[in-house]
Amino acid sequence: MTDQLLLNELIDIRRELHRFPELSMKEYETTKRIKKWLKHYDISIADEFQLDVGAVAEIVGGKPGPIIAIRADIDALPIEEKTNLPFASEVNGVMHACGHDFHTASIIGAAILLKERQQELCGTVRFIFQPAEETASGAKMLVEKGVLEGVEAIFGMHNKPDLPVGTIGIKPGPLMASVDRFEIDVKGVGGHAGIPEKTIDPIAAAGQIVTSLQTIVSRNLSPFQNVVVSITQIHGGSSWNVIPDKVTLEGTVRTFQEEAREKIPALMKRTAEGIGAAFGASVDVKWYPYLPVVNNDDTLEKLVTKAAEDLSYQVVEAEQSPGGEDFAVYQQHVPGFFVWMGTAGEYEWHHPSFSLNEEALLVAASYFANLSFHFLNSFHYRKN
Amino acid sequence: MTDQLLLNELIDIRRELHRFPELSMKEYETTKRIKKWLKHYDISIADEFQLDVGAVAEIVGGKPGPIIAIRADIDALPIEEKTNLPFASEVNGVMHACGHDFHTASIIGAAILLKERQQELCGTVRFIFQPAEETASGAKMLVEKGVLEGVEAIFGMHNKPDLPVGTIGIKPGPLMASVDRFEIDVKGVGGHAGIPEKTIDPIAAAGQIVTSLQTIVSRNLSPFQNVVVSITQIHGGSSWNVIPDKVTLEGTVRTFQEEAREKIPALMKRTAEGIGAAFGASVDVKWYPYLPVVNNDDTLEKLVTKAAEDLSYQVVEAEQSPGGEDFAVYQQHVPGFFVWMGTAGEYEWHHPSFSLNEEALLVAASYFANLSFHFLNSFHYRKN
Amino acid sequence: MTDQLLLNELIDIRRELHRFPELSMKEYETTKRIKKWLKHYDISIADEFQLDVGAVAEIVGGKPGPIIAIRADIDALPIEEKTNLPFASEVNGVMHACGHDFHTASIIGAAILLKERQQELCGTVRFIFQPAEETASGAKMLVEKGVLEGVEAIFGMHNKPDLPVGTIGIKPGPLMASVDRFEIDVKGVGGHAGIPEKTIDPIAAAGQIVTSLQTIVSRNLSPFQNVVVSITQIHGGSSWNVIPDKVTLEGTVRTFQEEAREKIPALMKRTAEGIGAAFGASVDVKWYPYLPVVNNDDTLEKLVTKAAEDLSYQVVEAEQSPGGEDFAVYQQHVPGFFVWMGTAGEYEWHHPSFSLNEEALLVAASYFANLSFHFLNSFHYRKN
Amino acid sequence: MTDQLLLNELIDIRRELHRFPELSMKEYETTKRIKKWLKHYDISIADEFQLDVGAVAEIVGGKPGPIIAIRADIDALPIEEKTNLPFASEVNGVMHACGHDFHTASIIGAAILLKERQQELCGTVRFIFQPAEETASGAKMLVEKGVLEGVEAIFGMHNKPDLPVGTIGIKPGPLMASVDRFEIDVKGVGGHAGIPEKTIDPIAAAGQIVTSLQTIVSRNLSPFQNVVVSITQIHGGSSWNVIPDKVTLEGTVRTFQEEAREKIPALMKRTAEGIGAAFGASVDVKWYPYLPVVNNDDTLEKLVTKAAEDLSYQVVEAEQSPGGEDFAVYQQHVPGFFVWMGTAGEYEWHHPSFSLNEEALLVAASYFANLSFHFLNSFHYRKN
Repeated sequence: MTDQLLLNELIDIRRELHRFPELSMKEYETTKRIKKWLKHYDISIADEFQLDVGAVAEIVGGKPGPIIAIRADIDALPIEEKTNLPFASEVNGVMHACGHDFHTASIIGAAILLKERQQELCGTVRFIFQPAEETASGAKMLVEKGVLEGVEAIFGMHNKPDLPVGTIGIKPGPLMASVDRFEIDVKGVGGHAGIPEKTIDPIAAAGQIVTSLQTIVSRNLSPFQNVVVSITQIHGGSSWNVIPDKVTLEGTVRTFQEEAREKIPALMKRTAEGIGAAFGASVDVKWYPYLPVVNNDDTLEKLVTKAAEDLSYQVVEAEQSPGGEDFAVYQQHVPGFFVWMGTAGEYEWHHPSFSLNEEALLVAASYFANLSFHFLNSFHYRKN
Repeated sequence: MTDQLLLNELIDIRRELHRFPELSMKEYETTKRIKKWLKHYDISIADEFQLDVGAVAEIVGGKPGPIIAIRADIDALPIEEKTNLPFASEVNGVMHACGHDFHTASIIGAAILLKERQQELCGTVRFIFQPAEETASGAKMLVEKGVLEGVEAIFGMHNKPDLPVGTIGIKPGPLMASVDRFEIDVKGVGGHAGIPEKTIDPIAAAGQIVTSLQTIVSRNLSPFQNVVVSITQIHGGSSWNVIPDKVTLEGTVRTFQEEAREKIPALMKRTAEGIGAAFGASVDVKWYPYLPVVNNDDTLEKLVTKAAEDLSYQVVEAEQSPGGEDFAVYQQHVPGFFVWMGTAGEYEWHHPSFSLNEEALLVAASYFANLSFHFLNSFHYRKN
Repeated sequence: MTDQLLLNELIDIRRELHRFPELSMKEYETTKRIKKWLKHYDISIADEFQLDVGAVAEIVGGKPGPIIAIRADIDALPIEEKTNLPFASEVNGVMHACGHDFHTASIIGAAILLKERQQELCGTVRFIFQPAEETASGAKMLVEKGVLEGVEAIFGMHNKPDLPVGTIGIKPGPLMASVDRFEIDVKGVGGHAGIPEKTIDPIAAAGQIVTSLQTIVSRNLSPFQNVVVSITQIHGGSSWNVIPDKVTLEGTVRTFQEEAREKIPALMKRTAEGIGAAFGASVDVKWYPYLPVVNNDDTLEKLVTKAAEDLSYQVVEAEQSPGGEDFAVYQQHVPGFFVWMGTAGEYEWHHPSFSLNEEALLVAASYFANLSFHFLNSFHYRKN
Repeated sequence: MTDQLLLNELIDIRRELHRFPELSMKEYETTKRIKKWLKHYDISIADEFQLDVGAVAEIVGGKPGPIIAIRADIDALPIEEKTNLPFASEVNGVMHACGHDFHTASIIGAAILLKERQQELCGTVRFIFQPAEETASGAKMLVEKGVLEGVEAIFGMHNKPDLPVGTIGIKPGPLMASVDRFEIDVKGVGGHAGIPEKTIDPIAAAGQIVTSLQTIVSRNLSPFQNVVVSITQIHGGSSWNVIPDKVTLEGTVRTFQEEAREKIPALMKRTAEGIGAAFGASVDVKWYPYLPVVNNDDTLEKLVTKAAEDLSYQVVEAEQSPGGEDFAVYQQHVPGFFVWMGTAGEYEWHHPSFSLNEEALLVAASYFANLSFHFLNSFHYRKN
């Protein structure tokens, strides 16, 4: 297939996905479509993982060798599209506003390209079409289903609107933040606003907790640990003349090192509980682990770079992002590398007018095909 | 009428009011009942004030002299009664849980007693049955209608569950707090919880405002100014991973000196706006004046004390209350004195099981009758 | 002796004391002078208390009765006088800048007057010339020496520059504040200013302790408890690029109720230690009780008022003072009353230009003589 | 000269320097010694810079080419040595506790080596023996004297006790922090500790400033900007019962990006002045720029790495340090690179027992000789 034909095909695929976006864990029609296209190109579906949503496909090379995985996420967002594109979402209030349609179509493209060279391949390429990235639950589910069994390395990407088409952002080490959520209940004793001495004022305590928690970043952690602690919600009280019983704080912590991440729940507990004790209030800190750091494997840097340079794509140092990605979950089990794929869009992720330059489909497809080929065949040679 | 007969009558009146409580500014039936009872005792209604709710009555003495006013408040509360009394409220969700039924019946009793000595009286007693004390709007409305015209002094009471029947709490100077409400909007710039440097975090600013506002009482005012500043509500944020644009604080200030009260809006503005400036946030302090201090006139202390001692009632020093009372509004126009009337109840004001010892009706009626008589007739003698 | 002669004598006494002021516990010459004057008027010195500094004298009345005490403090201050008065201090750096010379001379005057009526007196007047009021140690020492043995009541005064001569400030209940001192050590772990994560920053913790301690007054105590908590010293660090190990805070607490005073050490400990725990710092709160509240006995109010009115002195309500007085120590053992004596001075206590109108010597002497006479003789009559 | 002979010579030089350490700007004897050794090896002193302390030498190659500079710092510290070494400091209270003796001897060694190949050199090597690194003033002074005139690039090192001998730490970009100092005066109005309402309490304001300044790092800057703001001194008050007029804060800021560094004075001013305004206090923020970031030039990374690898030295990624170095001053004018030289010592810089493995002298000398040779001769070839 010529590049132009492939591009046309991938554009069609991407647009069909775009018209019919589905929310996390509800990607039923998306899954059917992916399987339909894969079958059309005679790419075999790995049914043994028994997925309700999402799909795994494999191309088993003509020669023996290791297994690598390429992952695309497939879910959409509860956002009302405002692009006016001819292929805009036909589902009210749901939109591929993060470009997962692009990821899916690109990886199908990589599969099509690799299928053409199946006999040469020294090993297997497993294509993981993952549901529920937006809710940080899909990767975890697939790992539990066994999709990483036998896998030596995994690769993935996210489209990047601020990079031009043909440019790939690469950075070993931490790329995207760990993401955790916390809640802090500050329980005092409510009462008459004119008789504070008979109350334990949870708002006064909460104010002090907010100011104290700033020191986790400013005093307790190294500036090289790149940590953010943000309190995003504070709620207490329902009347202007009654001191409430309770204030609830909620927020999130971002880090770029698992070592820093591990320290924070205890620091937060110590700080908030100490302030509570100072005020006679009882403080309950709840910590909800959400996502680890997307931490790219140093040893794969040369490969992912060479795969781009081979094809004359531009490699730039990837800018780190304070957002999270459940690609990180795979990296906890096998070496992995996640890259930025330039898509030259005008709007940021999750914007109702989000769009991308579809020329990038060919870049991404060829990049991941080349990367896979090199990994398997270099690996093969190295082994023998 | 014997004391026992009068007590029986006042109990009947109080219980009828208790069964049919009405909320502030909706005291239509209550007003009709009050007028009915007053007419029954041939006490004239002063129609010239043209009130929709509430009533003013007058006993014009047989001899010339000044006018004094006795005030009772008549409204009930949006509280579901839980007393199981045979005369419990028959109106769902409305209850005389603050004992204004007691005030009303008592002052009708005082009128009945004074009616018997009308010819001796050197001057006029005006009875003000005021609506809407609970919403702090009735006194203001009545003053605007002119009920204080010609009045030399005004007297009122509140029942006091923790004093025995026959005991009256008296204290010159401040008795009940000024009550004001404030709102503080802290406007920052919201954004991604992982990118705080592109936001202005209103929660961090609000935390510091909460801690700073404590210094209004602890540093900026004299300990003799008896001020309370309570922040009773704090609300900001609606998502765990987004820094919000705004936090709203609300609260109340209580003072026992108008001089202190006047200083506080500027102190609050200075403090909150300064903190806002420190954080780059814009802060808007809104101040809603609500009620002045119930400030008893020193020169009336001897009269209100003697009126009790004459009747062998026990006089104790009234304990100050951090609550407000719109009796304070009358005191801004004429000298006034507000006393605690012992009612030996088990529960505090506004409690669903609030009750009182009805023997106190006779104490209160006779006390205000005697007080009125002494004021007018001593005044008269003094003048001549 | 005529009033004028007595005044002249008291002026001479006061001026001699003024010229030769002595610091606390060093009032050797002052003591000699006091004894000299007392002996001159044949007033007997009570040697049984074996004082190194200070003196006790007694006038035992001709008839039996109780013992009352009148107290004057006699020490001066380490202040360089700047009055240019002809009788200004002749001792470098020491001055009667708080008017204790006036107190001493006045009470000698009272003794002279009472001596004249010794035979009429129904009981004994004990004159206590107390050293070391300024260091809050004299009263305690004298009580331990037994000067209150047998005493039914004690009276004292302080000159008041802002009241005119002939005016006496009287107020039952709390008049002057309790005074206590506290120290808070905040111990962290010092280190390189660029590596805060290896330190426990005591300055960050101390900042939060300062802000939290404001809530003792604003949230934990009633506005009617009239408490002041002032942090007056904060010290930590000795280099611009090293985080120190420790910050030390010091300050004082003033109350007007022993009940409030008793609560504060525990509140301070809870607050400061809680903040310390929040920061991982160890916090040590040391509390140094200094002086109780000068709390005037209600039952003596009529007597001290009548003693002034008898002599046509003006009685005003005494303004409360946030300063302390060790007269409070006597009041912990026997009923006592402390008054303000108007002295019409231009400068406040402890000012290098402090002065007073000496006409007030006669007022004070006659007031305390009259007060003593009434106490003993009314008491006597009452008893019989 | 054989390696062993050179090492022996450099050990002698280093030990003589170690025995006679001199403080910053007082390196008179050190300067004489350096010149003596250089002359002994016929290396010419560049007298045109007219230095009182410090020295500049040059080896002008046999062929034309650019000028590069190698810098050694020469000053010692006011620390009492506790090593018990036979060549320990003979100057009371002064010690080469930061290993500048090692730097000096090593660079003399590099000069000796390069002198042997002078004719081959395509350009000039300028050796800068800089005084007063510890006080951050020497580099600035030398730059003003013109030592960088004509220089294309500059190189330097610091010994690193935690790296083994033969290991060199290299990292392009920021290596050592910018260092700045700040002072904040918080001016209130002092007064009686019992009358806070007549004061403006600078301690209450300072406490809030300390807590607010934490948000510069936690809220106002990106976690990737690696900033530390440390308040290291806080001082206010001199009496337990007087609220002081003023509190003074002092501290330091470290950054690894000039862009972040530039933002901080304004953020600090906004924050501290805003808090001051909140309390009615006047706040004066003084900012003393001290040292820029040691920011290694990316384009020199390959050269400094190759120079090490050529000699089979181990290259590791240099760990960033929150300390400062006035080598940064040179880098503001010409491209420069600063490396860590492994010296396998037991104690950290500035420790009284600081020592190092002298075998590293030969590593450092040969490394900088090789680096210089490569720079000049590669440059030469490149140019032609």
